[in-house]
Amino acid sequence: MSSGDPEQKSTPHGPEIHVIKYSTHEFQETTISSSELNVWLDGSGTVWMNVDGCHTPEMMADLGRVLSLHELALEDASNFHQRAKVDDYDDYMFIVMRMVDSQNFCDTEQLSIFLGSNYVLTIQERPGGDCLNQVRERLRKRMGSLRNQGADYLVYAIVDAVVDEYFPVVERLGEQIEHLEDSILDGRRLRTGPMRIHRVKRHTQAIRRAVWPLRDALNILCRDTHPLISEHARLYLRDCYDHSIRVLDLIETYRELCHDLMDIYLSTVNNRMNEVMKVLTIITALFIPPTLIAGIYGMNFDPDRSPWNMPELRWYFGYPTALLFMAIVSGLLAYYLHRRGWLAWNKNPRL
Amino acid sequence: MSSGDPEQKSTPHGPEIHVIKYSTHEFQETTISSSELNVWLDGSGTVWMNVDGCHTPEMMADLGRVLSLHELALEDASNFHQRAKVDDYDDYMFIVMRMVDSQNFCDTEQLSIFLGSNYVLTIQERPGGDCLNQVRERLRKRMGSLRNQGADYLVYAIVDAVVDEYFPVVERLGEQIEHLEDSILDGRRLRTGPMRIHRVKRHTQAIRRAVWPLRDALNILCRDTHPLISEHARLYLRDCYDHSIRVLDLIETYRELCHDLMDIYLSTVNNRMNEVMKVLTIITALFIPPTLIAGIYGMNFDPDRSPWNMPELRWYFGYPTALLFMAIVSGLLAYYLHRRGWLAWNKNPRL
Amino acid sequence: MSSGDPEQKSTPHGPEIHVIKYSTHEFQETTISSSELNVWLDGSGTVWMNVDGCHTPEMMADLGRVLSLHELALEDASNFHQRAKVDDYDDYMFIVMRMVDSQNFCDTEQLSIFLGSNYVLTIQERPGGDCLNQVRERLRKRMGSLRNQGADYLVYAIVDAVVDEYFPVVERLGEQIEHLEDSILDGRRLRTGPMRIHRVKRHTQAIRRAVWPLRDALNILCRDTHPLISEHARLYLRDCYDHSIRVLDLIETYRELCHDLMDIYLSTVNNRMNEVMKVLTIITALFIPPTLIAGIYGMNFDPDRSPWNMPELRWYFGYPTALLFMAIVSGLLAYYLHRRGWLAWNKNPRL
Amino acid sequence: MSSGDPEQKSTPHGPEIHVIKYSTHEFQETTISSSELNVWLDGSGTVWMNVDGCHTPEMMADLGRVLSLHELALEDASNFHQRAKVDDYDDYMFIVMRMVDSQNFCDTEQLSIFLGSNYVLTIQERPGGDCLNQVRERLRKRMGSLRNQGADYLVYAIVDAVVDEYFPVVERLGEQIEHLEDSILDGRRLRTGPMRIHRVKRHTQAIRRAVWPLRDALNILCRDTHPLISEHARLYLRDCYDHSIRVLDLIETYRELCHDLMDIYLSTVNNRMNEVMKVLTIITALFIPPTLIAGIYGMNFDPDRSPWNMPELRWYFGYPTALLFMAIVSGLLAYYLHRRGWLAWNKNPRL
Amino acid sequence: MSSGDPEQKSTPHGPEIHVIKYSTHEFQETTISSSELNVWLDGSGTVWMNVDGCHTPEMMADLGRVLSLHELALEDASNFHQRAKVDDYDDYMFIVMRMVDSQNFCDTEQLSIFLGSNYVLTIQERPGGDCLNQVRERLRKRMGSLRNQGADYLVYAIVDAVVDEYFPVVERLGEQIEHLEDSILDGRRLRTGPMRIHRVKRHTQAIRRAVWPLRDALNILCRDTHPLISEHARLYLRDCYDHSIRVLDLIETYRELCHDLMDIYLSTVNNRMNEVMKVLTIITALFIPPTLIAGIYGMNFDPDRSPWNMPELRWYFGYPTALLFMAIVSGLLAYYLHRRGWLAWNKNPRL
Repeated sequence: MSSGDPEQKSTPHGPEIHVIKYSTHEFQETTISSSELNVWLDGSGTVWMNVDGCHTPEMMADLGRVLSLHELALEDASNFHQRAKVDDYDDYMFIVMRMVDSQNFCDTEQLSIFLGSNYVLTIQERPGGDCLNQVRERLRKRMGSLRNQGADYLVYAIVDAVVDEYFPVVERLGEQIEHLEDSILDGRRLRTGPMRIHRVKRHTQAIRRAVWPLRDALNILCRDTHPLISEHARLYLRDCYDHSIRVLDLIETYRELCHDLMDIYLSTVNNRMNEVMKVLTIITALFIPPTLIAGIYGMNFDPDRSPWNMPELRWYFGYPTALLFMAIVSGLLAYYLHRRGWLAWNKNPRL
Repeated sequence: MSSGDPEQKSTPHGPEIHVIKYSTHEFQETTISSSELNVWLDGSGTVWMNVDGCHTPEMMADLGRVLSLHELALEDASNFHQRAKVDDYDDYMFIVMRMVDSQNFCDTEQLSIFLGSNYVLTIQERPGGDCLNQVRERLRKRMGSLRNQGADYLVYAIVDAVVDEYFPVVERLGEQIEHLEDSILDGRRLRTGPMRIHRVKRHTQAIRRAVWPLRDALNILCRDTHPLISEHARLYLRDCYDHSIRVLDLIETYRELCHDLMDIYLSTVNNRMNEVMKVLTIITALFIPPTLIAGIYGMNFDPDRSPWNMPELRWYFGYPTALLFMAIVSGLLAYYLHRRGWLAWNKNPRL
Repeated sequence: MSSGDPEQKSTPHGPEIHVIKYSTHEFQETTISSSELNVWLDGSGTVWMNVDGCHTPEMMADLGRVLSLHELALEDASNFHQRAKVDDYDDYMFIVMRMVDSQNFCDTEQLSIFLGSNYVLTIQERPGGDCLNQVRERLRKRMGSLRNQGADYLVYAIVDAVVDEYFPVVERLGEQIEHLEDSILDGRRLRTGPMRIHRVKRHTQAIRRAVWPLRDALNILCRDTHPLISEHARLYLRDCYDHSIRVLDLIETYRELCHDLMDIYLSTVNNRMNEVMKVLTIITALFIPPTLIAGIYGMNFDPDRSPWNMPELRWYFGYPTALLFMAIVSGLLAYYLHRRGWLAWNKNPRL
Repeated sequence: MSSGDPEQKSTPHGPEIHVIKYSTHEFQETTISSSELNVWLDGSGTVWMNVDGCHTPEMMADLGRVLSLHELALEDASNFHQRAKVDDYDDYMFIVMRMVDSQNFCDTEQLSIFLGSNYVLTIQERPGGDCLNQVRERLRKRMGSLRNQGADYLVYAIVDAVVDEYFPVVERLGEQIEHLEDSILDGRRLRTGPMRIHRVKRHTQAIRRAVWPLRDALNILCRDTHPLISEHARLYLRDCYDHSIRVLDLIETYRELCHDLMDIYLSTVNNRMNEVMKVLTIITALFIPPTLIAGIYGMNFDPDRSPWNMPELRWYFGYPTALLFMAIVSGLLAYYLHRRGWLAWNKNPRL
Repeated sequence: MSSGDPEQKSTPHGPEIHVIKYSTHEFQETTISSSELNVWLDGSGTVWMNVDGCHTPEMMADLGRVLSLHELALEDASNFHQRAKVDDYDDYMFIVMRMVDSQNFCDTEQLSIFLGSNYVLTIQERPGGDCLNQVRERLRKRMGSLRNQGADYLVYAIVDAVVDEYFPVVERLGEQIEHLEDSILDGRRLRTGPMRIHRVKRHTQAIRRAVWPLRDALNILCRDTHPLISEHARLYLRDCYDHSIRVLDLIETYRELCHDLMDIYLSTVNNRMNEVMKVLTIITALFIPPTLIAGIYGMNFDPDRSPWNMPELRWYFGYPTALLFMAIVSGLLAYYLHRRGWLAWNKNPRL
């Protein structure tokens, strides 16, 4: 039970539990197998056990037996599709949260937390670089008051790290929306607009689905009095709750922006169609009427037979007159279109 | 009252009640007619009676008399349009749920459950392969702790089986939406898009209408303390409640996705129209102006009468000049359209 | 005060009150004028007074005096624009409901119910065939337990009849929507689609506006304990409440379906426009370019003046070459359109 | 303090308070300046003071001093942008309502009511013909039981008059929507449709914004017990509350109708566009192909040079054959369009 | 600790705290550094400390130590992304609000308020002209009853100033919407419409996001009884709460108006497209059919070869007849379009 450098004692095979035992003046960190768990829980000090992704049914059964956890809670901790929630089992609490997946933007992984009187057990869905490392660092380096406080404050520190991890993700979403907005208002890459809006919307929705129940769970944690959570820790959890509301606030704003973007996209497409139609109409208006006139003077009526048959063809200024006539008809139509404001379209060829 | 192989004792005609009587060490299974019901309810052990689809008013009356059930509850159990609900009749509880119909995707059938102190009576809308078989198997094979627990835990097992049956259905809906999304974003089979979105939406709506009241009923079951439901069973029912919320969560997500798909569909159709219009405009722009010029030089003004009458016709390079003139006019218009970005359309002919 | 055949004693002029007095073993039915009311209320047994449409201020005043009803309740009963509600006046209850109008599909008429300790007074907005007749029949023919119960159970029977009357109306709405859906998905009668969707929507809205407050009123009736309503009757009223929720469930589903239908309608219209545009573009693409070529060879440049002036006109295969040229240009454009998938439109001329 | 004809004692300048003092057998009405207020409040009887639009800070200060009103309530009564609310100041109540402006359809003016044990003070935003006159008439002519009741009943009478004034306004809105609906479904005055829908929507919104908080305020008045409001008056206020809910019900219905109208409008415009496109396509289809044929036979290939060069020109039936060919091509296209159902458009030229 | 002209004692470097100490008869104002804070808090009178933008961690730590503020509250006061909230720390209250930024329209800055028994500490996000100056002026010039009241009333005065600052911003938004509405209904600057609507919507959303939690915080302040806030001050805070509801009311109205504007915009664009299409159709209808006729008489069939080959060319009135024929065909088409109402379009060239 000697403290020591972590990562060292790990046996190469089989799932391992990462254990930190600390009190104000002591700090031990190691990785053990589930069978060695018993010794660590005895004595004073707070014990934080972390199972990092790969866990076997045997390990879960060991954990359940040693900590006397309820079968249902263990099942929920092994089944990674839970919504965030807080279940109160009298002598321990079971908290489920979803935390941002470090590898996969906008995906979430499950974090199950068991809070007992002197231990915290966390079970992650996937191994790897996660936001809990900063809590470990604070414990190791004795930053803040974490070492002086009990298991409830450790849970606060974990929850706080998880909630704060959402902010960079939400900010990235915000930047994507900003970018999308610019490109749609500029009229660039219009064709892929709906797909890109849709993608951002799905991400927003995914985050929202993770944070919404998290907010409710935090509300329960910071509102109800419970012997396992001291008044002091509850004050801090209220702060986490405020943060989760801020995340949701931003998410709701982004949802609305996405909706508006779709409207703007559609109106931009509509405007373009209008533009196309106007060009088509102008070309038709300018060239079809003279074409008729040209067609008329291309008729083969025989001027020799009657003075009524196309005498214009033999006029001295017949041809210039015909061209002038064409120009006048086109010009009148152009003036009409101009008066309707159709010739004054935007200089910007993109918009 | 000897236990025995089921399916054997069934008399060929008349509705039958399938009865299982069990305690930790005993297990009996048989099918009886409603008149034989009385003997089975005496003595210790939990009795599960199941009426499988075909039931007559006489049988319902028998059941009501033997178990002293209220007329209203019996009516609701015979009338298969109930929403999920929990009615508390002091010495028994009446629970209505809708379960996924095994034959008909996205349709639901009614399951009525009467929970007494030592019996459970389930009445199904339709006979045939249902999710209750797995509960029967667990009883027969003594899997889990089902045999050691009372009637309330049996109700939990049934409710759990019913709720969990929704997940595969919801997943299938999710796959359909995924498929639909791909085909709309690809622009394939656009014409039938709205109909297919509409069909998925109706299915989603049907599931939602079944699960929404189910969630409320489960909330009542796991929240209120009731002498018939032990603290232990209530903990498990809370788990069912969590599952029902997860189903609803997914359903709400799918509803929103369907809505978004319709938007994307419409914008795709709009884009296509734009494309068609652009092609039309380009053809018009390229061919109508030269047609006018050709028309002009097809006029029959007499060059002999005046030097002003179409002298071009007798120029040495008259014809090539005219062709060049046509090419220049078309080219200018093409350049204008190109500058507006209309000639740079998507290479992908589908999108 | 002898019982007798109803309809007989009615004096030809003046508003009449239809009175039924019953207990388990007695049954009397007659029509009286409001001044005779007093005698009927004495003695044991339950009295059901019904005012059927035509009522005068004098009659209302008589009723108010004899039964000591509050002025406000009487006013509400005479003014036929009330929403469903339950007002508790200590020694009697005043219930307002809206029932389906038997003559006019999707219109509702007001039914006011006063429930005292031993009487029920119902005031209808319009005379004529109504759903209360079946309650009268059950009293006359001693069906069910109606004759054995008090005034509260009679109110249940009336409320139940009123609520159940909504189901056929809602089903008819459902059939109309089904029909509309078929015809829109088939593309038949597209022009009148929005008007027909709008009409169904208004009907749905009318029913919803009548049932929504009815549900709230029934919730109050079956939730609050009140000396006038026995525990037994309240159980039955809870059933009515469940029915009203089912009606609302269906109505909400229909509202959503109507909304979706509008979307499908619009996308169908859009698709049609697309089709029209495509045909227009194809015609233009196939015929305008050859027209230009024909125009060119219709020009009158003089081949005698220069070898550059339309030598094609004197080629041996000039004409066939020109025709071939036209065909090639049109063919290339057609191939281009074909590659974009525009020539592969639906065979079904309607859709 | 002698009663007398009102309007007589008013001094020409300075704001005036209109005072009515009444009990069952007495009635006095006059206009005084704020300094004379003190004498009127002494003695028995209920005093109704009304300030009609023009009030100075001095008068408000006088009123506040004499009646010991709170500074905040006086401020709210002078500032005419309040929402309806009820503030309880122990020895008096302060009620703010918005009433329909008699001059300006769909605008509202503020009415502030102070209810003390034996007085009612009403402060109107604007002078002139208002719905309070009918209450004054009832007091003057001793109609109803108003003279026999206390100040709380007078407040009910005022509130009732204010709420009932909304019904004609809402009905007028309903008629406007009905009218709009007819004209849109008929296709008349399509261009101004959106503007007119928008105008009705804004009116609906204005009424809704006034009535929504009014309903909440009335709910507080009729729900909470308060020494200043007797049980009897509260019953009557509940009636006002019901009326306000009815107004809101209608308003919500109209909002939804306006929304639907916009949809119908848009689909009508879409249909029209479709019609225009079809006519354009038909003209193009019928005239462009023959134009090509005419163009071909207008080419100047020299038939003398080769038997391949336009021999048709010298055929005996060349011209009729060409015309026939044109007719056949147009006819085939027309038949094709007819089979697609495009030639069978609506006879009604408007729709 | 002598009172004196402010701005004078400020040391040129380092963050400063602006302090006002007042009671009914005393008034002192100065700027000090955080180390001098201690002396000011002793003795009677209310102390208002204001930190104006530039604050260092050291100053915050000093403030926390002297006033015994909780670490979490200090963090929230230094981190400027909080939503409005009220946190109760027993011996002081911590209030966060967002106030309108004086420099930047529609942006908000954070104002943190600590309310102790005899002090108020306000921490602003940014220095500069703010709405707190008017409160300072009222203290200096002894306007109102501010000097006679305690710290809770000072908090009311600050909150009131902050809330009232929102009204001009909201009014400006209202004017922008009004302006936008006019320009869209007029059809002016249609192209930029969606962008401008979007911009107003974002501003509306920003204000709403700031005021919504503010309303909740004020509701808590004026509803819950708390020893630090007297009954008298709570009455005034209720007034602030009413104001915040009015701001939200207006904001909701503007949101709805923006939504409607988008609809109107789209229908205007649609109408324009319709107009363009109609002009195109009319030009096509008037000029294409005569073009065909002209083309026919431009054919070169040889009249010498057969009496069937274009005998019209040699008629005496051939040419006028052909022109007449053209006019008749165009005229008939024009009449047809006129009967469909397409020629009667709006005179107003803009709309």
